[in-house]
Amino acid sequence: MNLFEFPTYNQWSKLLTRPILEKLNLNDLVDKVFNDVKEKGDKAITQYTYLYDKVLIENFKVSDEEILLANVEVSNEIKEAVNVAKANIENFHISQIVNFPKIETTKGVNCWTETRAIEKVGIYIPGGSAPLFSTVLMLGIPAKIAGCKEIVLCTPPDSEGKINPIIIYVAQLIGINNILKIGGIQAIAAMTFGTQSVPKVDKIFGPGNQYVTQAKVQAQNFGVAIDMPAGPSELLIIADTSSIPEFVASDLLSQAEHGIDSQVILLSDNKMIIEKTLEQLKIQLSTLPRKDIAEVAFKTSNVILLNNLDECIEFSNLYAPEHLILAIKNAPDFVSKINNAGSVFIGNYSCESAGDYASGTNHTLPTNGFARNYSGVSVDSYLKKIFFQELSAQGIQNLGKTIEIMAQAEQLMAHKRAVSIRLDYLKKEE
Amino acid sequence: MNLFEFPTYNQWSKLLTRPILEKLNLNDLVDKVFNDVKEKGDKAITQYTYLYDKVLIENFKVSDEEILLANVEVSNEIKEAVNVAKANIENFHISQIVNFPKIETTKGVNCWTETRAIEKVGIYIPGGSAPLFSTVLMLGIPAKIAGCKEIVLCTPPDSEGKINPIIIYVAQLIGINNILKIGGIQAIAAMTFGTQSVPKVDKIFGPGNQYVTQAKVQAQNFGVAIDMPAGPSELLIIADTSSIPEFVASDLLSQAEHGIDSQVILLSDNKMIIEKTLEQLKIQLSTLPRKDIAEVAFKTSNVILLNNLDECIEFSNLYAPEHLILAIKNAPDFVSKINNAGSVFIGNYSCESAGDYASGTNHTLPTNGFARNYSGVSVDSYLKKIFFQELSAQGIQNLGKTIEIMAQAEQLMAHKRAVSIRLDYLKKEE
Repeated sequence: MNLFEFPTYNQWSKLLTRPILEKLNLNDLVDKVFNDVKEKGDKAITQYTYLYDKVLIENFKVSDEEILLANVEVSNEIKEAVNVAKANIENFHISQIVNFPKIETTKGVNCWTETRAIEKVGIYIPGGSAPLFSTVLMLGIPAKIAGCKEIVLCTPPDSEGKINPIIIYVAQLIGINNILKIGGIQAIAAMTFGTQSVPKVDKIFGPGNQYVTQAKVQAQNFGVAIDMPAGPSELLIIADTSSIPEFVASDLLSQAEHGIDSQVILLSDNKMIIEKTLEQLKIQLSTLPRKDIAEVAFKTSNVILLNNLDECIEFSNLYAPEHLILAIKNAPDFVSKINNAGSVFIGNYSCESAGDYASGTNHTLPTNGFARNYSGVSVDSYLKKIFFQELSAQGIQNLGKTIEIMAQAEQLMAHKRAVSIRLDYLKKEE
Repeated sequence: MNLFEFPTYNQWSKLLTRPILEKLNLNDLVDKVFNDVKEKGDKAITQYTYLYDKVLIENFKVSDEEILLANVEVSNEIKEAVNVAKANIENFHISQIVNFPKIETTKGVNCWTETRAIEKVGIYIPGGSAPLFSTVLMLGIPAKIAGCKEIVLCTPPDSEGKINPIIIYVAQLIGINNILKIGGIQAIAAMTFGTQSVPKVDKIFGPGNQYVTQAKVQAQNFGVAIDMPAGPSELLIIADTSSIPEFVASDLLSQAEHGIDSQVILLSDNKMIIEKTLEQLKIQLSTLPRKDIAEVAFKTSNVILLNNLDECIEFSNLYAPEHLILAIKNAPDFVSKINNAGSVFIGNYSCESAGDYASGTNHTLPTNGFARNYSGVSVDSYLKKIFFQELSAQGIQNLGKTIEIMAQAEQLMAHKRAVSIRLDYLKKEE
């Protein structure tokens, strides 16, 4: 990690920048896969799965037998842990359900907002060595709570055409039975256009590599919504003398092990805490299985000594981190000052892992500075708000003149007349 | 309008399609303007304003004198109407403010959601013959209620370098003082990158022509969020024998006068109502100032006779209209069946104009089928949700084992260790 002591405001702008990623130009590839899947459906998916996942699959859907088998293969220990996490995630997300009041804005004019579930949603779960079943919980549970009618889950098969049983177990546990062995661009294409096996969805959720991310961006050109723009994961920690360096180091490492492009930042108003944390980091890093990954991530990561905690908060708000740990005394006093962050962890015992897995909050969060203008995934991400209004005869009589004047000023005479005709009709009735 | 009687389900798919617009390929143009504005700032804006708006402007900001003058120029009649609309829009949007509860998901594990305003937002108001001041209300009021710190409004100047005084009056009335005489792609570019005169914003709102819309889409590549994808305005009316054909015709016309690409659809279970409405349409059309526009719009618009009201609702949900009028008996009974719509108007006296101007609901709504997966603009559009969690020592002790098991199953050992280190520390303390 690179240490900076009391950088000037001019130096801040450089420290606030994310490392620039080598961005592959994938537009043409995504276009090609999209076209093929749109035209040839399942056949194209089989071809791309053979090309990228090195396995021949013609029936993508996880069978009832595979679901039963997964139920046997997953250990009771994992099942119990998943149950605890599931209950917490459910409790937290149910707290996000909102009922809006009906407002009589003018006598006889009632207006209100109602929510409706997005009917069809797709969830993408990346493949790879580790089964990211926690993301199945994080994206599936709010979809169920919102009341989405159709939920489809796509995840790439391994070279034997299988999906990790924990993924299957967790999906069926929360009521997702349409699990498809499809990964990469072809999965996003399939959910965008629909094929014989894959339903067309209204919104696509989930993390992925650059291929999947670019495919999600381009899916938006075909009427599909996406959860949020994606980038590498990030953690910013603010620590003062009340923090425990051993804990802070372990949190920095838990972020850095995600990938070589992860970014971690440590801010403090105390040099000794920084030094002790860096010592601890060295010790803990040496025994970490994913040491090589973390070491690369630390190369573009910064430790910054600032004048006081208010300055630390200011820096954090400008950086807009995905995860923010406040390992400081009286942390709750600083909550109201946090303007830009995805998820905030308060105090010495709130490690990021808690939110990643089991405390209840969602772990799908805005990265790369998007915490300035995007929210993490919540029940709301699976809902639309619809506005309703009901004007009585009295309502249009009370508000009619106002509408007529405004419509006339905007030179939209048919807008005005829709009111005048009603007012005339009511006059005649009197 | 084209009449279809009892179309088969196979015919529905064609009737559900929007007219295909001739889409200009503007990517390269937008790229060029973006690059120029990014590099040359205000100077580039002056050049593009001279090119497109035919006027030389070097100081884009509306001056205090212009604001004072606008206050004098706007009639008292319009001021009073604007005040009524403003109060209603404020009342309705304040009802969308949400406070989320704190949830103890596990003993000692507290989680909650807080909202924060997006700090800097940009509002684009199109130019043209009519001053669209109603959109200033619709986009400015929720920004103020949300608490956005910086609000900038861009709108193109006329050939004399002026902005319609009603726009200026309404903007300052709701507290927007940074009004800039900039239109088109260069306005979106300026708010995306920031220039000497224009602050860089986090999210851009507002309608516009194809140039502005494409610029908003491309702005997303530079970290800016946008309100929603935009398309031509639409209205679907469901009418039964309780409807008043004169009213229904006036509503169809108020939508059709928006533009030649507006689409209106009338659904009914009763042929006589359809016939009477079409008669009224003919009569009212003949005296409409924007007759020529409406006539073109009606060419791609459909009247469809269906078997019953449930079928009408089903069709409407599949079409996902921006505006939906339920001119039917017992309309409130059908509200719960509406799944996809931007804004819904209930009964004979709820004309679309009411919502367009003054009832209180927002008129910035998803078009082109996006009501399936997007919401209209609300206070929420100007907010981010941030998740918070605070675990006590007891909290991590209660939840620690669960997190460890899950992290291990995902092979993220640093995630596990962040918990183990805390549990060990607490054990030693005991």
